[in-house]
Amino acid sequence: MSSGKDGGAADDLRSALEALDAGALGAELHALVQELYPICRSITGDGLRESLRILQRLAPLSLHEVKSGTPVFDWVVPREWSFRSARLVGPSGEVVADAARLNLHLLNYSIPFHGTVSLEELEQHLHSLPDAPSRVPYRTSYYREAWGFCLSHDVRRRLGPGQYRVDIDTTLADGSLTYGELLVRGKREEEVLVSTHCCHPSLANDNCAGMAMCAALARLLLRTRPRYSYRFLFVPGTIGAITWLALHQAEARRIAHGLVAACAGDAGRLTYKRSRRGNAEIDRAAAHVLAHSGQPFELRDFTPYGYDERQYGSPGFDLAVGSLTRTPYGEYPEYHTSADDPSLVVPSKLADTFRRYLEVFEVLEGNGTYRNLSPMCEPQLGKRGLYGTVGGQSHAQASQMAMLWVLNLSDGSRSLLDVAERARLPFPDVRRAAQALERAGLLAETGG
Amino acid sequence: MSSGKDGGAADDLRSALEALDAGALGAELHALVQELYPICRSITGDGLRESLRILQRLAPLSLHEVKSGTPVFDWVVPREWSFRSARLVGPSGEVVADAARLNLHLLNYSIPFHGTVSLEELEQHLHSLPDAPSRVPYRTSYYREAWGFCLSHDVRRRLGPGQYRVDIDTTLADGSLTYGELLVRGKREEEVLVSTHCCHPSLANDNCAGMAMCAALARLLLRTRPRYSYRFLFVPGTIGAITWLALHQAEARRIAHGLVAACAGDAGRLTYKRSRRGNAEIDRAAAHVLAHSGQPFELRDFTPYGYDERQYGSPGFDLAVGSLTRTPYGEYPEYHTSADDPSLVVPSKLADTFRRYLEVFEVLEGNGTYRNLSPMCEPQLGKRGLYGTVGGQSHAQASQMAMLWVLNLSDGSRSLLDVAERARLPFPDVRRAAQALERAGLLAETGG
Amino acid sequence: MSSGKDGGAADDLRSALEALDAGALGAELHALVQELYPICRSITGDGLRESLRILQRLAPLSLHEVKSGTPVFDWVVPREWSFRSARLVGPSGEVVADAARLNLHLLNYSIPFHGTVSLEELEQHLHSLPDAPSRVPYRTSYYREAWGFCLSHDVRRRLGPGQYRVDIDTTLADGSLTYGELLVRGKREEEVLVSTHCCHPSLANDNCAGMAMCAALARLLLRTRPRYSYRFLFVPGTIGAITWLALHQAEARRIAHGLVAACAGDAGRLTYKRSRRGNAEIDRAAAHVLAHSGQPFELRDFTPYGYDERQYGSPGFDLAVGSLTRTPYGEYPEYHTSADDPSLVVPSKLADTFRRYLEVFEVLEGNGTYRNLSPMCEPQLGKRGLYGTVGGQSHAQASQMAMLWVLNLSDGSRSLLDVAERARLPFPDVRRAAQALERAGLLAETGG
Repeated sequence: MSSGKDGGAADDLRSALEALDAGALGAELHALVQELYPICRSITGDGLRESLRILQRLAPLSLHEVKSGTPVFDWVVPREWSFRSARLVGPSGEVVADAARLNLHLLNYSIPFHGTVSLEELEQHLHSLPDAPSRVPYRTSYYREAWGFCLSHDVRRRLGPGQYRVDIDTTLADGSLTYGELLVRGKREEEVLVSTHCCHPSLANDNCAGMAMCAALARLLLRTRPRYSYRFLFVPGTIGAITWLALHQAEARRIAHGLVAACAGDAGRLTYKRSRRGNAEIDRAAAHVLAHSGQPFELRDFTPYGYDERQYGSPGFDLAVGSLTRTPYGEYPEYHTSADDPSLVVPSKLADTFRRYLEVFEVLEGNGTYRNLSPMCEPQLGKRGLYGTVGGQSHAQASQMAMLWVLNLSDGSRSLLDVAERARLPFPDVRRAAQALERAGLLAETGG
Repeated sequence: MSSGKDGGAADDLRSALEALDAGALGAELHALVQELYPICRSITGDGLRESLRILQRLAPLSLHEVKSGTPVFDWVVPREWSFRSARLVGPSGEVVADAARLNLHLLNYSIPFHGTVSLEELEQHLHSLPDAPSRVPYRTSYYREAWGFCLSHDVRRRLGPGQYRVDIDTTLADGSLTYGELLVRGKREEEVLVSTHCCHPSLANDNCAGMAMCAALARLLLRTRPRYSYRFLFVPGTIGAITWLALHQAEARRIAHGLVAACAGDAGRLTYKRSRRGNAEIDRAAAHVLAHSGQPFELRDFTPYGYDERQYGSPGFDLAVGSLTRTPYGEYPEYHTSADDPSLVVPSKLADTFRRYLEVFEVLEGNGTYRNLSPMCEPQLGKRGLYGTVGGQSHAQASQMAMLWVLNLSDGSRSLLDVAERARLPFPDVRRAAQALERAGLLAETGG
Repeated sequence: MSSGKDGGAADDLRSALEALDAGALGAELHALVQELYPICRSITGDGLRESLRILQRLAPLSLHEVKSGTPVFDWVVPREWSFRSARLVGPSGEVVADAARLNLHLLNYSIPFHGTVSLEELEQHLHSLPDAPSRVPYRTSYYREAWGFCLSHDVRRRLGPGQYRVDIDTTLADGSLTYGELLVRGKREEEVLVSTHCCHPSLANDNCAGMAMCAALARLLLRTRPRYSYRFLFVPGTIGAITWLALHQAEARRIAHGLVAACAGDAGRLTYKRSRRGNAEIDRAAAHVLAHSGQPFELRDFTPYGYDERQYGSPGFDLAVGSLTRTPYGEYPEYHTSADDPSLVVPSKLADTFRRYLEVFEVLEGNGTYRNLSPMCEPQLGKRGLYGTVGGQSHAQASQMAMLWVLNLSDGSRSLLDVAERARLPFPDVRRAAQALERAGLLAETGG
């Protein structure tokens, strides 16, 4: 399906972009978000497995299990958490919180507990948001054994004195950590990593949206024959990325470019957080795509906080992995609260984020380095039908400008992305110009 | 006439600048523009020859002829175009267009044609500007055989049905391409190129003004004994530059700095377009001169569009040739229309552009690298009469600051232009300070 | 008193900064300014010696004498100037100027003169400020023998015709140039230079304030055991710095970082003038301290004018010596006039400048380079008690962010100052994070 000796899938991706039915895709992905949303996921356990199996409907990702107790660098794979139910009932028998209605109510990774506690004791186990009193917060306790409930502050402050019945039916026991993986094999061993976290329970934008989008990206890439191999990882945050890296150090060395996907569907503007390297090809490709998106966008430097770019960008790996999201972690008011529900995810925005990922892949796939075979003065484009025949007009057409730029800068040291950046032209226009010039015998791709 | 062992003509140029009678020069050059304006030039032919002979009154440029059919890189020198007359007469015998009144009316390089055509057929051969309906456009057809007329859109839309008489008396036949050249020999073989296009017919600012200014620059430089050799080229655009480069590749390698001159007389601000290299000495010299001109100005990066910097800056040559103009090509509304007539050229602006070229040459000529011979602490300038004797005043005089900067930065690695840039002082002040320090034995020019 | 194998005095300085009683220090230093103010200092002589002896009450600086006639690079140590009295009496016997009331009245370094002169002749010897008519200017004539008086322009223009009695009782004779010096020995031979000029007579901010502040800095550093050795120089401006450099070229080579102190107490904002190198560690340390000072501040590039950074930054030395002041030389209206009296010096501002010097020293002392010993992914901070145990909250605490940054960037090539700059965190927070990580065995200082 792909053109050229190592042309990559840029043409395929361009066709896919031009044929993209954003309405249909947005609707499909939003339905998937709604299906994933109620499942009680965590960094281990059946909620995670169930979610990955849903994604398998889009793309054949394989599920991997890593045993509890496995050492992974400075960490150890934790015991597996099984959740069945959790309820908090008040002195008068009223249900204060029930994880069956909203799984955020349970402190994620709570140990089992059954008993009756006074309000005073209960308070030590409650989490709420005084500044957003109507929302239930998302809280976890993975590495310290604890039980707890998350309530809206409105509910919490109305709790009266008395005895509260706590029934947390969970198990913390040896088992395994699950992650999903799919490798789209390309012509080269060098890989593009797309990683997304799938440990969050009922939070729609963070990260049902990212999970759905990544599965759809994998589905599309499987229909191309790309230059790079694309590795999709659906991992529990932090421990999942660490586990994968610890067990796949050789594969990690093959990652040439990567993106951490998250917060893919809110109404906010696209945001690209650079890799630790700061000016890697993935950083330039993403910046270029956003700059030509015709929308507001933001570029940010790497920080060692956020999602799993923290692990991919740890100094021992220093991978060229950035993160392309809409509103970044912690910056929308609904973040990590019950307000991050499916209504926060806008189908058209989710499809738009999908589009930008494809555009970034298009740059990576199509970014070659060429040599002008007629470098002494300009070649006569007109006699090859590549240039207007009536002279004197004020401005060259955009397609002619793209050809002039490619000819001028293609000295074997500059890539098409270099040309696009310098010329401030969209990458697809520059690549199209290069293709026309190559067909005319004026340009040749260099070995590099 | 010049000072120093290889001091260049910087002193001569400074004197010329200080003695410059801008009023007289502007008037002289404007008269030349008026004289050149009516001639029907093209990329070959007698109009071009006649124009170059007029310029010979100012400076002894030699005319060179290159035969039609000569291969020049990817191009071939075209057949020569001879123009005698061209008229378009309407159904009622009215003269619609007559190249004798305005040579822009004829599509430049039109093949001969005599006949009667219907309005419908005629329309295929007409060019006009719907958005500037009172102006006649300038159009060419060098490389596709065609005939045509350029009309104001006002005239065109009033053309009634009927038969139109076309009489285009031109010839397209083997002959030659003509260009003018003058080399002012300096002490070094390294050259400064000044190139201007001379193929445009009745367009005053683009480029009768540039032709006149370049001839005057050559006249002045012939009275100096410069460090560099100065090569003036008066060439038909694109094909002329390509022809010269193809036939003078050894000479092209000697070009150390260069400027393409055009649009030298409109009322707009001075604009410098950097060479492809972006930060060559010519780029820095021109930026410095404009920054200290006391006028608004603009600096732009190289683009592979515009005038013959496109050829000098093709990747096989990559010469350090920028372009110093007033309003750039295509950016003034009169560009390539009948409104680019002598009234658009302002004598004082033309003289001002001339001045800036000289100032750039002054920097190139005077830009040496020096070594402070007393580098341990400041030397005692006062005992040499170079510093005020009463201390305590708040600010050193400008001339003293220039000396302090030259002493501080002259470690053999920085040129006077480096010093002027860093100190934000005008180059002539810095050079004067260096001369004073050299006379005092505190500074020596280095080999480099 | 200091921590770590070569931990420097950063902890000591941090404690001193936290314990600083700015009110008491400001009052003490202002009293010192008032005591120094009336003394008639010059580049040589007893006023200078007396001033340095006052500073010895704070820190045991030693006084050095360099004989008149000693060659120092391009200069010669001048004859010593002794001042006893100077009076100008008008035609009616009225005292026009008396150096006993304000020593600025006497042209500094005036040769002796006793005689009666006409107003016309007197005018050749008068200095005043037409633009600031109520102020007496500060003027000197070190290297040309002259006598003169400095008057307010108000007084000068009221001088009537007649004979004026001049009595200048000074001596210019072989003697010596005096400077003060104190070396606080640290663990390394590499030195931090703190240099201040002490030649100005009754000018409070310029530079009684700087002299007082430097003496207090020396007093404090003597109570620490720093990594670097700190050399304090109290030198007459220009000739004093040149003299010290000429006679201590080996010591000068040991100066790794330096600051020229002056104008330390006016109400203006802190200003750092970079060293000639522009991006030396001292430049980055000072910029960092000012950026985190919570106050307006200004950074400036080096210029070869100002105070003795001119000499330390001459090309033969090119030392990494910047200048940290409040309002720079020549930029406050009272500069070098009688209005630069003790009322211009604000005690709280003087203490604030002192504080910033200490903060710069803190950076220099504490700036190590570390290696993350657990560089593959993030180490598990939580199990070491370095990280909160409840997850899901939006933002890491500042101390946790500092740890994440130190871990992420400590690859042996980046210093803590690099980390602080990149993370935009205050240096003390970054250093504290590094200390915590080092204690936890996650970080080790590298050899470099």
